Amino acid sequence: MKKTEFSFIGDIATMFGSLPHHGFEPIGDDCTVLDMGSDSLVMSTDMLIEDVHFLRSASSAEEVGYKSLMVNISDVAAMGATPTATLLSISLPESAQGEWSEDFMRGFYAGCKEHGIALVGGDTTASRDKIAINVVAMGRAPKESIKRRSAAKLGDIIAVTGKLGVSSKGLVDIMFGDLNTAAAKAHRRGQARVEEGKFLGSCEAVHAMMDISDGIASDIKHIMELSNVGAEIELSKIPTDYDIRYATTGGEDYELLLTVAPDRFDEVASALLNATGTTLTAIGRITESNTITWLDNGEPSELELKGFTHF
Amino acid sequence: MKKTEFSFIGDIATMFGSLPHHGFEPIGDDCTVLDMGSDSLVMSTDMLIEDVHFLRSASSAEEVGYKSLMVNISDVAAMGATPTATLLSISLPESAQGEWSEDFMRGFYAGCKEHGIALVGGDTTASRDKIAINVVAMGRAPKESIKRRSAAKLGDIIAVTGKLGVSSKGLVDIMFGDLNTAAAKAHRRGQARVEEGKFLGSCEAVHAMMDISDGIASDIKHIMELSNVGAEIELSKIPTDYDIRYATTGGEDYELLLTVAPDRFDEVASALLNATGTTLTAIGRITESNTITWLDNGEPSELELKGFTHF
Repeated sequence: MKKTEFSFIGDIATMFGSLPHHGFEPIGDDCTVLDMGSDSLVMSTDMLIEDVHFLRSASSAEEVGYKSLMVNISDVAAMGATPTATLLSISLPESAQGEWSEDFMRGFYAGCKEHGIALVGGDTTASRDKIAINVVAMGRAPKESIKRRSAAKLGDIIAVTGKLGVSSKGLVDIMFGDLNTAAAKAHRRGQARVEEGKFLGSCEAVHAMMDISDGIASDIKHIMELSNVGAEIELSKIPTDYDIRYATTGGEDYELLLTVAPDRFDEVASALLNATGTTLTAIGRITESNTITWLDNGEPSELELKGFTHF
Repeated sequence: MKKTEFSFIGDIATMFGSLPHHGFEPIGDDCTVLDMGSDSLVMSTDMLIEDVHFLRSASSAEEVGYKSLMVNISDVAAMGATPTATLLSISLPESAQGEWSEDFMRGFYAGCKEHGIALVGGDTTASRDKIAINVVAMGRAPKESIKRRSAAKLGDIIAVTGKLGVSSKGLVDIMFGDLNTAAAKAHRRGQARVEEGKFLGSCEAVHAMMDISDGIASDIKHIMELSNVGAEIELSKIPTDYDIRYATTGGEDYELLLTVAPDRFDEVASALLNATGTTLTAIGRITESNTITWLDNGEPSELELKGFTHF
């Protein structure tokens, strides 16, 4: 659980902090981590609500099922773990029972099959009018492979996998009725970086890691806060085919944001490309300042980067 | 996940059966079970939807918070495990942000504190108009303590903890506007049998066990189906202060339903009373027939026992 997600009740971590932990690590990362002896169990949970996270008119049930799985296994992969199992809870109004729910399960199953993930539990129930979905994804990792937001070091290179901005560009296309652009298709069928997360987890030179769910402008702040560092990012280096605002403040790309020991960046990037076919791009560095500095070809940028509001 | 809960897509267990299991047991019991080497991790998930599982006008936010926790740890206790941790997802319409959500967390926290349970992760999000809550409860148990629905044996005594029917009687009181009867209070603040589940888990003579969530008339069928046995229940022996229909088909009592080796029932019942102060009552026995026989003072009963529909 991200600490900020419970801001509605002040500091939930303090409220529950005095209770026993039973082997679980304190709240703060993409996933909860439980010591299993020889390795660790990591788990992440996300809730998707109709008309907040998806529209039945814009996404097929199969796409919603696939996406429900991907948003969660992306969190598991971002810790350097291999996703293994899920729990699925779903509440269905009458209008979504039958065909919609069957198509949803087909999409969920397709994602599970791609990555060899088990469905090991869940709950189904009625609802009055909106669909609510909750997915828990679990994964396993050797203890030394687990990457935390708190592990960034001064001088680290900030890097991202793949290209940014495609999902939010796709969302805008869909809002304008262009359902069949490449970006719109990518938005509806986002891929979690499962192989990449596992590979980067095994690299000692990778320090902090998380997935990009709200855009780097917002997500880098979690690493800064928990690692007690600052960041300098060069806009011209951000890998994207679209407007820089999609690439910096657009959500749901599910690419990985990581920090790497500077003298080993080239080695990690070429090993990742070799192992998975995915590029790793250096976009900045970790600084002492506690603030983000945005550079545009080396000069301070005037760009005002606001947060992304999930649709 | 109970197998029947996914009836909306036919046999989900078959659909996902060919995927790797990664150390998780197949679907069928109150909880998912993961082999942890020295012991097992069990986990259960339940979704509560406003106007399906609770009404804001009839239950306080604190009561909903407390109940959200109890329904889940009841499943963990019913496996013979000790609840240790929870994940909480909650989606809040604007009208429930602020005071309602803070009171909800107070109720959830109160239950966690009573049983020494950690909150280790979760998600909060907006919703359009209804509150949706998903809780995952986790627990630990020595492997040999885990009680399954499939473990009932021919000739076993069928037994229940405590008294039945109070929760559904309380619900009816609330529906008639009697919010302050003892039953109504018990309905709003049901207690999971945490100590009892752990103790009965440690008893070798206890074979099958589950919690009573839909009434024994419905719940005993899960044991019958998975153990491939029948049941004979004597109505006059069912411990209750209310009409027999509440006690047999009323939901949400969170008492435990178990089967015990007949020659060791007295020993188990007196040890449970000693350890926890809770009574264990013999109400029938496991038969070969694959059907339920209801007896009334030894004679076949004419009572027609239908299922309970959760409010």
